[in-house]
Amino acid sequence: MRQRLLIACPDAAGIIRSVATVLHEAGANIVSSDQYSEDPNEGMFFMRTEFDWEPSAGDLQTLQVGLAQVGQRYDMTMRLTRADDRKRLAIFVSRSSHCLHELLWQWQTGEIQADLTVVAGNHPDHQTTVQRLGIPYVYVPMTRDRRQAAEERLWQAAQSSDLIVLARFMQILSPRFVAGWEGRMINIHHSFLPAFVGADPYRQAFARGVKLIGATAHYVTEELDAGPIIEQDVQRVDHSHRVDDLRRIGSHIERQVLARAVRWHLEDRVLVHGGRTVVFRA
Amino acid sequence: MRQRLLIACPDAAGIIRSVATVLHEAGANIVSSDQYSEDPNEGMFFMRTEFDWEPSAGDLQTLQVGLAQVGQRYDMTMRLTRADDRKRLAIFVSRSSHCLHELLWQWQTGEIQADLTVVAGNHPDHQTTVQRLGIPYVYVPMTRDRRQAAEERLWQAAQSSDLIVLARFMQILSPRFVAGWEGRMINIHHSFLPAFVGADPYRQAFARGVKLIGATAHYVTEELDAGPIIEQDVQRVDHSHRVDDLRRIGSHIERQVLARAVRWHLEDRVLVHGGRTVVFRA
Amino acid sequence: MRQRLLIACPDAAGIIRSVATVLHEAGANIVSSDQYSEDPNEGMFFMRTEFDWEPSAGDLQTLQVGLAQVGQRYDMTMRLTRADDRKRLAIFVSRSSHCLHELLWQWQTGEIQADLTVVAGNHPDHQTTVQRLGIPYVYVPMTRDRRQAAEERLWQAAQSSDLIVLARFMQILSPRFVAGWEGRMINIHHSFLPAFVGADPYRQAFARGVKLIGATAHYVTEELDAGPIIEQDVQRVDHSHRVDDLRRIGSHIERQVLARAVRWHLEDRVLVHGGRTVVFRA
Amino acid sequence: MRQRLLIACPDAAGIIRSVATVLHEAGANIVSSDQYSEDPNEGMFFMRTEFDWEPSAGDLQTLQVGLAQVGQRYDMTMRLTRADDRKRLAIFVSRSSHCLHELLWQWQTGEIQADLTVVAGNHPDHQTTVQRLGIPYVYVPMTRDRRQAAEERLWQAAQSSDLIVLARFMQILSPRFVAGWEGRMINIHHSFLPAFVGADPYRQAFARGVKLIGATAHYVTEELDAGPIIEQDVQRVDHSHRVDDLRRIGSHIERQVLARAVRWHLEDRVLVHGGRTVVFRA
Repeated sequence: MRQRLLIACPDAAGIIRSVATVLHEAGANIVSSDQYSEDPNEGMFFMRTEFDWEPSAGDLQTLQVGLAQVGQRYDMTMRLTRADDRKRLAIFVSRSSHCLHELLWQWQTGEIQADLTVVAGNHPDHQTTVQRLGIPYVYVPMTRDRRQAAEERLWQAAQSSDLIVLARFMQILSPRFVAGWEGRMINIHHSFLPAFVGADPYRQAFARGVKLIGATAHYVTEELDAGPIIEQDVQRVDHSHRVDDLRRIGSHIERQVLARAVRWHLEDRVLVHGGRTVVFRA
Repeated sequence: MRQRLLIACPDAAGIIRSVATVLHEAGANIVSSDQYSEDPNEGMFFMRTEFDWEPSAGDLQTLQVGLAQVGQRYDMTMRLTRADDRKRLAIFVSRSSHCLHELLWQWQTGEIQADLTVVAGNHPDHQTTVQRLGIPYVYVPMTRDRRQAAEERLWQAAQSSDLIVLARFMQILSPRFVAGWEGRMINIHHSFLPAFVGADPYRQAFARGVKLIGATAHYVTEELDAGPIIEQDVQRVDHSHRVDDLRRIGSHIERQVLARAVRWHLEDRVLVHGGRTVVFRA
Repeated sequence: MRQRLLIACPDAAGIIRSVATVLHEAGANIVSSDQYSEDPNEGMFFMRTEFDWEPSAGDLQTLQVGLAQVGQRYDMTMRLTRADDRKRLAIFVSRSSHCLHELLWQWQTGEIQADLTVVAGNHPDHQTTVQRLGIPYVYVPMTRDRRQAAEERLWQAAQSSDLIVLARFMQILSPRFVAGWEGRMINIHHSFLPAFVGADPYRQAFARGVKLIGATAHYVTEELDAGPIIEQDVQRVDHSHRVDDLRRIGSHIERQVLARAVRWHLEDRVLVHGGRTVVFRA
Repeated sequence: MRQRLLIACPDAAGIIRSVATVLHEAGANIVSSDQYSEDPNEGMFFMRTEFDWEPSAGDLQTLQVGLAQVGQRYDMTMRLTRADDRKRLAIFVSRSSHCLHELLWQWQTGEIQADLTVVAGNHPDHQTTVQRLGIPYVYVPMTRDRRQAAEERLWQAAQSSDLIVLARFMQILSPRFVAGWEGRMINIHHSFLPAFVGADPYRQAFARGVKLIGATAHYVTEELDAGPIIEQDVQRVDHSHRVDDLRRIGSHIERQVLARAVRWHLEDRVLVHGGRTVVFRA
């Protein structure tokens, strides 16, 4: 069984050795190990370890007790997952189809490994496409006077999921909703953040005359478009591109950036600390 | 003699034909011609034409009269330059040497074709390097109480130049100075504008946790870091890069971006309209 | 009616003026005009002009006669198309679905504007997907002993099309077939040509230890992977990527590169000369 | 004292733990640790560890004995260096100055940390520039009839160095010379290898009509342009770029790529195995 161990703690001497020793004594075989140390003297230490483990009698306890002791000694935040434990994924979407489509496609090919539990949209547009794949589609109109009820329905739709992906979902969720999904809700913003926060970033980009446009996948926090950035990318444009060209070119950046961010989250490659992400890329 | 003709005017039918006819009748041979039309129905039209011209008797008048007539008919802003008329270039610099160094280097290799008339700096650091190349170095300390006098000296130093390049010149020039060099003063800002306007953008970029950092060359306008963008570029970074790494990586982006922008300006490839640039790239 | 005029001829003085005059006299309004001159003294001249044209009585003849005269004077190869005349598109495919899928998707969103007449494959895999979109799927098994008959069926399937796209079609077509579709058959090769010609380029790339992998869309010619290149792109990889990772990362480059090349061909942006392409990008 | 430990060995369980334990017991504090495992079941394992170490009495022996034991147990190839032990660098150059210039510049700014012992060239061109920086310049003309003597002089010039950088050195060195500097001589080839091996790659690239050009830094091996690749990069070009444009654009790629490769080598970030490199990037 392939396992993943994620650790964050204040940096100190001996962490790697201690963790490696626990894993070794429990019969695990480390397959890969990535670390990042902010500053050896006083910063945080982050680690992602993949190991193969076919526990014999006693190994489970050795691992649990060992990790608990190490965790306490170094004041660790720790997460242990099984690689074949597929996360449950919910997608929220509005009219634009390109990000949804890319996620569905990479889910079908197995590049995105997750149980796709539900797609919820505030338009009925994607119902047929989604249902044909055997995935429930929840249509939640979001008119002004029934916002709260609508959000309640979205909450229920996603309830049993591990991750919500906002695949160009153009509605703003309440602080309460956002707080309930902290670090587990990914949005794609169609600009190179922090440039062009807010509405219609391609129009803003055109007006400013930038020579590159971009997209940003980030965890959603209460402040709009200000959450920890997971991935960004850009493409060159020039004066001859109109707003519609920027939208078209940008749509291809968006779907690639979002799909990468989702994949990394599902593979437990992303840690958040101090408003920034540590991404242990493959 | 290679000539360059730059035109901006409201779009209309027949412009290309009219200009081409004037050039033809004056004995010119069009070598390249780039156009950009914002919107054929109501926008602006921009054109850059390079032509070879060995005028015989009468040709000069044919060209002058012809262009004047076409210019009046279409309400053109027009600029005619000789390709071998080297522009006069002044560089302002502070402590950081990488942008200055790149410009000096490309000037030596002939990639940047200009008469480098003066380098002015508010630190004495680069005096030896600059003077060794036979270029005058004007050291202008900019303490708070003598700001106006210092700016006056900078003005005089650049007086006879066609273009001022702020090669990481970290002083803010007065609105009067800026107004006097509108469209003829290029700055490099060490971020992907409009992200991270103002001081220490690499520190801002680090704090925000962006996954790409960039640089922007733009014409200087009164509003800080808000002038028309000529060129931008970015490079990928990750969580492991500290502020100093971003500065190092960014310095290489800055010097390339600034050198490209300067070269394009010197080759009459850049037109400004409505706060945006049209860049006719080679 | 938006029209497109493509011209290739030996460079000479007066071409732009002559063409612009003919268009003007026929009542056309030039919307955009791109030229490329290999070498003003002795090379070829290439031009793509878009113009709006609502012909009155006599205009059609003015245009036809005028273009014929200009064409003869300058020894032009010329192509005049209507922008709303959708080209007829055939796609050949084998097992891999990513390129086919991207083309179908961009066709559905209207980014690729064409009449998709047929998809032909040497495996039955994509039949359902294709037929669900209302497009005929022709299954043509290509075993060794029935190669010729199979190719005959492919020929018939594509017969009425203007363009064949080989969307990871892993069979080699006969010289006769290739010759019949010269300049009208686009292939995607999964490497940065001319590196890694032939079979399994990702394995070759892995073995060579390259730090970037790429994809190349090109017109098919008799010599394998040696036809005129329309578009290429790359992405960074490192030592930790195994062959399967390269395949996965590469698949996203392939589909983007192929879709761009197909779109440019359909928009009459590509001219071929001397084994190289001139691409007038938007 | 910052130390760097580089390890290559057949993969096995317990390596990380064993190394970390030795370092811990010798009083070292691991600052960063990068590993790469080809294949946990049967491949090679590579590791780069940086640690701070202020050895007390006995620590040196603990470390030496400990590493020797671990090294033997796992059949390790091992290299231990002090980060502040500057490597000795020799540069060979021909006419082109851009790569030499970039290295000199990054050496002056401290980005490239090395003792620059000598520059040797088969032209006298760069003598003044180099000597002004206090570095010996050895002029070694390489005419056909005195090849062997010339190579002998180059050998002597570089004798005391740890690394030779061929900064656009356009002479082919003998197999004997190459063998003597295996893994310690870096060349920049002005193409995206393995495309365009051999002479005048920009002309080859132009003729093939590629849409991206590149540069490759690699260790020199006996077979021309076939050594392990350390770094590559590319930039977009189009049909309008002539061979000279490719040279100009390419020169900026070359110097960046070469400088990165040299820096990584000097920082002990590069391991070679099976004709490929493992590069532990910062």
